[in-house]
Amino acid sequence: MSQTDGFFTLEMHDERDALVILDQTLLPCEVKYIELKTAEDVWWAIKKLQVRGAPAIGVSAGYGAYLAAKHFETDDLSIFRAKFKEIRDYLSTSRPTAVNLFWALDRMGRAAERDVGSVAELKKVLLDEAQAINDEDISMCKAMAENGLSLLKPNMGLITHCNAGKLAAVKYGTALAPMYLGHERGYNFKVFSDETRPLLQGARLTAWELHQSGIDVTVLCDGMSSLVMKNGWVDACLVGCDRVAANGDAANKIGTSNLAIVAKSFGIPFYVIGPTSTIDMNCPTGADIRIELRDETEISEMWYAKRMAPEGVKAYNPAFDVTDNKYITAIVTDKGVVYPPFDVNLKKLFG
Amino acid sequence: MSQTDGFFTLEMHDERDALVILDQTLLPCEVKYIELKTAEDVWWAIKKLQVRGAPAIGVSAGYGAYLAAKHFETDDLSIFRAKFKEIRDYLSTSRPTAVNLFWALDRMGRAAERDVGSVAELKKVLLDEAQAINDEDISMCKAMAENGLSLLKPNMGLITHCNAGKLAAVKYGTALAPMYLGHERGYNFKVFSDETRPLLQGARLTAWELHQSGIDVTVLCDGMSSLVMKNGWVDACLVGCDRVAANGDAANKIGTSNLAIVAKSFGIPFYVIGPTSTIDMNCPTGADIRIELRDETEISEMWYAKRMAPEGVKAYNPAFDVTDNKYITAIVTDKGVVYPPFDVNLKKLFG
Repeated sequence: MSQTDGFFTLEMHDERDALVILDQTLLPCEVKYIELKTAEDVWWAIKKLQVRGAPAIGVSAGYGAYLAAKHFETDDLSIFRAKFKEIRDYLSTSRPTAVNLFWALDRMGRAAERDVGSVAELKKVLLDEAQAINDEDISMCKAMAENGLSLLKPNMGLITHCNAGKLAAVKYGTALAPMYLGHERGYNFKVFSDETRPLLQGARLTAWELHQSGIDVTVLCDGMSSLVMKNGWVDACLVGCDRVAANGDAANKIGTSNLAIVAKSFGIPFYVIGPTSTIDMNCPTGADIRIELRDETEISEMWYAKRMAPEGVKAYNPAFDVTDNKYITAIVTDKGVVYPPFDVNLKKLFG
Repeated sequence: MSQTDGFFTLEMHDERDALVILDQTLLPCEVKYIELKTAEDVWWAIKKLQVRGAPAIGVSAGYGAYLAAKHFETDDLSIFRAKFKEIRDYLSTSRPTAVNLFWALDRMGRAAERDVGSVAELKKVLLDEAQAINDEDISMCKAMAENGLSLLKPNMGLITHCNAGKLAAVKYGTALAPMYLGHERGYNFKVFSDETRPLLQGARLTAWELHQSGIDVTVLCDGMSSLVMKNGWVDACLVGCDRVAANGDAANKIGTSNLAIVAKSFGIPFYVIGPTSTIDMNCPTGADIRIELRDETEISEMWYAKRMAPEGVKAYNPAFDVTDNKYITAIVTDKGVVYPPFDVNLKKLFG
């Protein structure tokens, strides 16, 4: 199950009785893998965001439920199933808003009801089910990778926002999946990663994982996208999504909409990438999606005295940009207000 | 010379032989005024950015040159003038790229050449000239305030980027000038301030000065502007400018162009506000303006373990936004690529 890139998000090692995960709370400063051996270990890892991202949480919960069940010391199937339900209920409290967590645990629960001859057999069924959740995640991401890559060409400049990568899944990720697949095929992309304020997932996670995998990545502040586009450095935008309404309106990390509007003004394609589960045909439009408001201190206070983008990752730091006159309504000076056409009217006042 | 708002950027107190400035390096955590009594004091204050903003630097340099000259112990006008030139040369090295600094010191130099009868008389001329630079800055900002306010209505929601306020000038500022004048006249504006990454002048300075003056201000991360505009909270954008080309293209702090493009997409007016000196009729278009690139560590490393927006200032912290389908080129899923019209084509695949 070992992966060829420089790191992995999670790996099951049944022979060691352990789910091994990369502790994402230490990124980008430290790369440390930890062994989760009990349901309690997995619960805390999810709770503390050591493992994060909907797909990765689901897969971890599946393996966590199996690891606990593996050590149930009973030969009685009904006792086993009752204890397994307790474990599932317990794990489901680790992150109460993570839909994927419940989905994976329900699926493990249905597997536990299967008609088998012994507890040993049922343990094998549960391992297979957890493994299936893992493998299906890889397949889905691989399909998104292929579909996304069909829209791209070698040597393109790409921009992304937040983290919709391998760190949020088992392999490939969603928005970053076409980048990884293209990289495997020698596409030589140049990627820009919005730092994604306030929580900086772009600087801390996306830049880290792309850099680890040998993909050329440069961190930007979120307000710099129009300048890199004007420079001609961006051919396509690739972003993930949390929920897509039936009319195509797409909810994603704050700042995505600004990026899309700016891309549109430059005629640069904007691709939203996500698994089937994010398409919500019961949600008519984006106006029906409630926006989560988070603590103000994330903006005003949550600053750290440590680095926010990984060592070795480039950052592009222009101090100024130029606003094209077509976006300016009026120029106000001490001598008066000037309206378009500016070339004519500025000359009248200042020429 | 005392001002009625809660703070002042700089004030000359000739009776105390001191230019009193607000130490801006301590904002927003501490409000501390310091007395500058010598040319060296003023040189360091400019160097260390304790006083900043083109107009404020110019005015400080003028007063600083006067303060030094005041204590020259000679009755010989030519010795006085020679020593005064040394002081001007010295002060001009405090911030080598600040055009306004050279302009103010040149102006003081021309004043020193005036035909007078005595050193005492010339000292009075220099104080008057420094005072004139100060007063003209207030008049110009007041004119921008009036011109800008003519475009606004009471109870409007406004958004700004970076700091083009009173902290950068003697009074009113540029982009914030109409807000202050409107506030004096009971306009009751609701202002949003982009935090302005990477150096956070919006969170640290703009939010602080508006809040001090009793204007309702909310800090935003730079990627949040489309959401507040979609919410219907913004009626106009007001930004400063470093240089305006003859065709109206306007250079300003990085992130300004993103804001302008987003505003345009919502049909919200975007006003660029600056004094006559920023209109550069010798610069044909924005393409002729060279963009300063700054150190990458400002993005990747320059984080502080202290608060970045002032106590008591609101921050709006939505976790997500919705990208309208008109800005989305395609939605990529594991099942395939979906193009507009999304309502029809998503239904085909997922309905």
